[in-house]
Amino acid sequence: MNNPAVLIVMGSDSDLPTMEEAAKVLDEFGVPYEMRISSAHRSPKRTAQLAHEAAGRGVQLVIAAAGMAAHLAGVVAAETTLPVIGVPMGGGALSGIDALYATVQMPGGIPVATMAVGKAGAKNAGIFAVQILSLRDPELTKKLIAYREQMAAEVERKDNELQKSRS
Amino acid sequence: MNNPAVLIVMGSDSDLPTMEEAAKVLDEFGVPYEMRISSAHRSPKRTAQLAHEAAGRGVQLVIAAAGMAAHLAGVVAAETTLPVIGVPMGGGALSGIDALYATVQMPGGIPVATMAVGKAGAKNAGIFAVQILSLRDPELTKKLIAYREQMAAEVERKDNELQKSRS
Amino acid sequence: MNNPAVLIVMGSDSDLPTMEEAAKVLDEFGVPYEMRISSAHRSPKRTAQLAHEAAGRGVQLVIAAAGMAAHLAGVVAAETTLPVIGVPMGGGALSGIDALYATVQMPGGIPVATMAVGKAGAKNAGIFAVQILSLRDPELTKKLIAYREQMAAEVERKDNELQKSRS
Amino acid sequence: MNNPAVLIVMGSDSDLPTMEEAAKVLDEFGVPYEMRISSAHRSPKRTAQLAHEAAGRGVQLVIAAAGMAAHLAGVVAAETTLPVIGVPMGGGALSGIDALYATVQMPGGIPVATMAVGKAGAKNAGIFAVQILSLRDPELTKKLIAYREQMAAEVERKDNELQKSRS
Amino acid sequence: MNNPAVLIVMGSDSDLPTMEEAAKVLDEFGVPYEMRISSAHRSPKRTAQLAHEAAGRGVQLVIAAAGMAAHLAGVVAAETTLPVIGVPMGGGALSGIDALYATVQMPGGIPVATMAVGKAGAKNAGIFAVQILSLRDPELTKKLIAYREQMAAEVERKDNELQKSRS
Amino acid sequence: MNNPAVLIVMGSDSDLPTMEEAAKVLDEFGVPYEMRISSAHRSPKRTAQLAHEAAGRGVQLVIAAAGMAAHLAGVVAAETTLPVIGVPMGGGALSGIDALYATVQMPGGIPVATMAVGKAGAKNAGIFAVQILSLRDPELTKKLIAYREQMAAEVERKDNELQKSRS
Amino acid sequence: MNNPAVLIVMGSDSDLPTMEEAAKVLDEFGVPYEMRISSAHRSPKRTAQLAHEAAGRGVQLVIAAAGMAAHLAGVVAAETTLPVIGVPMGGGALSGIDALYATVQMPGGIPVATMAVGKAGAKNAGIFAVQILSLRDPELTKKLIAYREQMAAEVERKDNELQKSRS
Amino acid sequence: MNNPAVLIVMGSDSDLPTMEEAAKVLDEFGVPYEMRISSAHRSPKRTAQLAHEAAGRGVQLVIAAAGMAAHLAGVVAAETTLPVIGVPMGGGALSGIDALYATVQMPGGIPVATMAVGKAGAKNAGIFAVQILSLRDPELTKKLIAYREQMAAEVERKDNELQKSRS
Repeated sequence: MNNPAVLIVMGSDSDLPTMEEAAKVLDEFGVPYEMRISSAHRSPKRTAQLAHEAAGRGVQLVIAAAGMAAHLAGVVAAETTLPVIGVPMGGGALSGIDALYATVQMPGGIPVATMAVGKAGAKNAGIFAVQILSLRDPELTKKLIAYREQMAAEVERKDNELQKSRS
Repeated sequence: MNNPAVLIVMGSDSDLPTMEEAAKVLDEFGVPYEMRISSAHRSPKRTAQLAHEAAGRGVQLVIAAAGMAAHLAGVVAAETTLPVIGVPMGGGALSGIDALYATVQMPGGIPVATMAVGKAGAKNAGIFAVQILSLRDPELTKKLIAYREQMAAEVERKDNELQKSRS
Repeated sequence: MNNPAVLIVMGSDSDLPTMEEAAKVLDEFGVPYEMRISSAHRSPKRTAQLAHEAAGRGVQLVIAAAGMAAHLAGVVAAETTLPVIGVPMGGGALSGIDALYATVQMPGGIPVATMAVGKAGAKNAGIFAVQILSLRDPELTKKLIAYREQMAAEVERKDNELQKSRS
Repeated sequence: MNNPAVLIVMGSDSDLPTMEEAAKVLDEFGVPYEMRISSAHRSPKRTAQLAHEAAGRGVQLVIAAAGMAAHLAGVVAAETTLPVIGVPMGGGALSGIDALYATVQMPGGIPVATMAVGKAGAKNAGIFAVQILSLRDPELTKKLIAYREQMAAEVERKDNELQKSRS
Repeated sequence: MNNPAVLIVMGSDSDLPTMEEAAKVLDEFGVPYEMRISSAHRSPKRTAQLAHEAAGRGVQLVIAAAGMAAHLAGVVAAETTLPVIGVPMGGGALSGIDALYATVQMPGGIPVATMAVGKAGAKNAGIFAVQILSLRDPELTKKLIAYREQMAAEVERKDNELQKSRS
Repeated sequence: MNNPAVLIVMGSDSDLPTMEEAAKVLDEFGVPYEMRISSAHRSPKRTAQLAHEAAGRGVQLVIAAAGMAAHLAGVVAAETTLPVIGVPMGGGALSGIDALYATVQMPGGIPVATMAVGKAGAKNAGIFAVQILSLRDPELTKKLIAYREQMAAEVERKDNELQKSRS
Repeated sequence: MNNPAVLIVMGSDSDLPTMEEAAKVLDEFGVPYEMRISSAHRSPKRTAQLAHEAAGRGVQLVIAAAGMAAHLAGVVAAETTLPVIGVPMGGGALSGIDALYATVQMPGGIPVATMAVGKAGAKNAGIFAVQILSLRDPELTKKLIAYREQMAAEVERKDNELQKSRS
Repeated sequence: MNNPAVLIVMGSDSDLPTMEEAAKVLDEFGVPYEMRISSAHRSPKRTAQLAHEAAGRGVQLVIAAAGMAAHLAGVVAAETTLPVIGVPMGGGALSGIDALYATVQMPGGIPVATMAVGKAGAKNAGIFAVQILSLRDPELTKKLIAYREQMAAEVERKDNELQKSRS
């Protein structure tokens, strides 16, 4: 995958099962991406370098995922002007509230676009990445519209099933 | 302003002083935008229409701001495949925690890119919009890099002042 | 069920086991109802339509249940002047606090009558619906009084059992 | 006011400025109501009696407002089968979170329809009362529809003003 | 048990396993008590009566336990001038924070002496009851001092074991 | 005041205006008390000594007030078998939630009877102290009953005023 | 272990599995330590003595761990001028938020250096202890630098594995 | 100040009035320090460099202060093996809870010794720094003991004043 449009970085391999949700969406939309493990605290230089070099490698945006005092997204955002999407990891003693606050409450100047805590957030990070990329790729817009219609149809299908099961 | 790239919607005119922070950034970067008041609950049809028609009018992304049970960003996101950035308003009995949760905790499928509560979040919404737009506008990227350098220089200037004042 | 007095809407089929508590109460009181799945975000048009047409179909009130950034009850309330009862779903990374705030903190103008998080709230939504309907149906009032007496008797029975078990 | 349709009870006269918001709405809709001060803890017998006798006096529903460990709505709900709407008071050391939880988290069996904390909640309690009463009063439904249209128009008017001020 | 010094009331039989902790302490100290199930909401009259008659029956103080919007202790306290100790039940969607706030945040005039959430609180309610009763019973004071010494010795014993296991 | 029945200890002189509420109640009921400033952290030996000697000086119970990581009540409770009532101070960065948790969440073995945060809690600490003392002083019970009647009458008076002002 | 540089105290033997994380780190760095069980509330005198005598025994710093209303670290800090590191235990009804606030929110004058809730905090307490000790022991500094490099290498190794597994 | 033992870094000049509390303590104890403004996000390279070079310049420990998603202390800690003390700034929409969690909840491997939110925490950061430095400077230990005695004497003086004012 030598030309990734999206860089997914996570602070620990324990975040991998959650972040697969983002990867699945990107696979579904045919968006090339790279998944990396790099910690804001345990490998700061490598993380800074990864973020710093991303734009030069053709990356369009970064998805960063971390838990607890989740500094990864902010640290990445400080090293690039590419859009950075943050996904707070759930679990832990504070159930992810710590990761949510540490990701979303960025001071003025360096934004991190924060998603919901955990798997729903990871999935939405993937979709949001596609929405950004679709701004210069009409094919992606068509796919997004189809994806939406499929979601609406799925809700309708489940509703119909419920009606049948109750009649 | 007949060709806005960014649509800023807010649920109430009381959100205006906060959202001026986003507008100021867009002005600074020369990005055309439109500011609208439209409520998810008090004018739902108009809000849906505004969101639905945005892409057709050339809007590239939407910034939506609301307080309390802040549904506006989610409702807008449900009606368009454009990227939607949410800004939770502070204040009120729960100090904006309610608006933060109601904006960020979107279920899988319909993402809202959430910023910090209040003015810092509004400012960052403007910057994040520019970051997205810069993906197809190298001029904006240059300006973003300059903006970053200016921020770093400003920090340095304040640090120098502090050193002088203490010596 | 062609003449439902109560419309129960939920954002996802995963809410069904919780909302059965509301349905059970309505069954017990002989109140006709309809259970529907419709999402504020994934099927917004259908949700708006469902809410909008409810009154015309003879529906007297709506019970809306959703989790996370629970916009469903608010979105329904924005489309009808029928009373809307909101039930925040528990679970998830924030244990339902997000759903509670997103349901109860409605801005002035569009009320949502919010119940407790989860199954207790779903059951109470059913009872509250009966209380509203009883205002024009003295039979329901009688049944409510009997239901209350039965609850009080049940508490007394359990207390008596406890006394026996301890003597 | 010898035939009130709505009984507004509050735990303390300090809640009066907030609850005037409910009263204003009822005045606007021409719904007769009674405002009473009665405490769940300091005057429990009177509160129980007030709740118990309400239905016999023709009251259709009760709005109960209290702060801190806000038991008033629950205590009233335990003494009547009329619908009880709870309004948590803001302020205090815990900013009304205590009152919100103590009002909304009613155990299964005795519902309290909870509104937002503070003035927005008080106003919505008034509107929700009208929505319930409108189920047997088509005039009220008409007024509610007009009220909604007025709100939507007001949003539109403010939006227009904003457009003018910015052009 | 016709002459209980302590009345333990709980809102539901599901609170029994927790409240056994209080009972165990009272058994240990030889303090006669009565355990009752009575709900603030489902059996309000019985609860008020139980509280009201307690002093006349020789009860010296009441321990009241409830979960969620835990009104029981407050409702009991409103009906007696005996000291009332409140134990918030844990669990539920909000993990007992709701019960804690609803028990401890009593408005000025009607105190509830609140213990920790769950089993630790139930145990401490029993000990606190003994502490109150010891004010007029020197035998209980002696037992309390012995109980304290035993606790300190137990800590010392565990520390010694740890030292052995590590040497 | 050489024979105080109640010892009021506070961690700092800044707690004095709040704790005057407790003192006022004790004055009103004619209960002799002593007010002391002693910190769990800054004067630990003195605090331990004060607590340890209290029973020997005829003190019947201790009211302890502190803010932030409010250890005072727990530290006092560890040094005496007298009942200890804790009053969490409000204010500060965390608005007294920290003081509430640090006071109420005592582990099993050493109870602290916790009151509401701030002035309401201080007042209730005074009343609860009187309730405990009344167990061996029928005069205090009479006064408590009168105090309750006065509170109920005061509520009634305010309600009557409200009725007059609205007719 | 007659000359420990670090004293690890915990309030209960149930904290032992968590605090082993701190011990493991100290073992790894070859720092002698002593692990003790002593409760702020159940064995206050012993705790005060342990803290008071620590410096005289050559202890350089104390790690104190406790849960719920976690007073242990503060009580130890009040009895010694050695640096005290606090580790809030997770679990319990409030998931360790109570322990976090009770440990970190120390009033001005008596600091407790607080770590994250639970195992991560216990591990970091060990590392922080080494960091302090390294100020006068260049060998420890070398080991710390090696430890950091190992962590960074471990992140790199996991990243490489991920790349392989995905190619 | 060419040989600072302590480096105080803060993310913004708005943190200065709070951090003066730390400086005042260091002045009082005669500990040389340097105060710097450097942001984790707006000047990341400079911050990393400042942290990285600190040890080489003779700095013994770092105090880092930041608000909101307070990454500064963690980012500094990732670049040095010197002890890092974190001070969460209060204020803002979330009152400093965000800064507290983002500072204290560091994942295993990179500790930040966290103090209370705001001024009390800043003061304690200064004292804790002195406690660390005192491990190799007996003069500082003597001063710390005197400081403690002075605090205890101050509490005693205020208590005596209170006794006088009340007699």
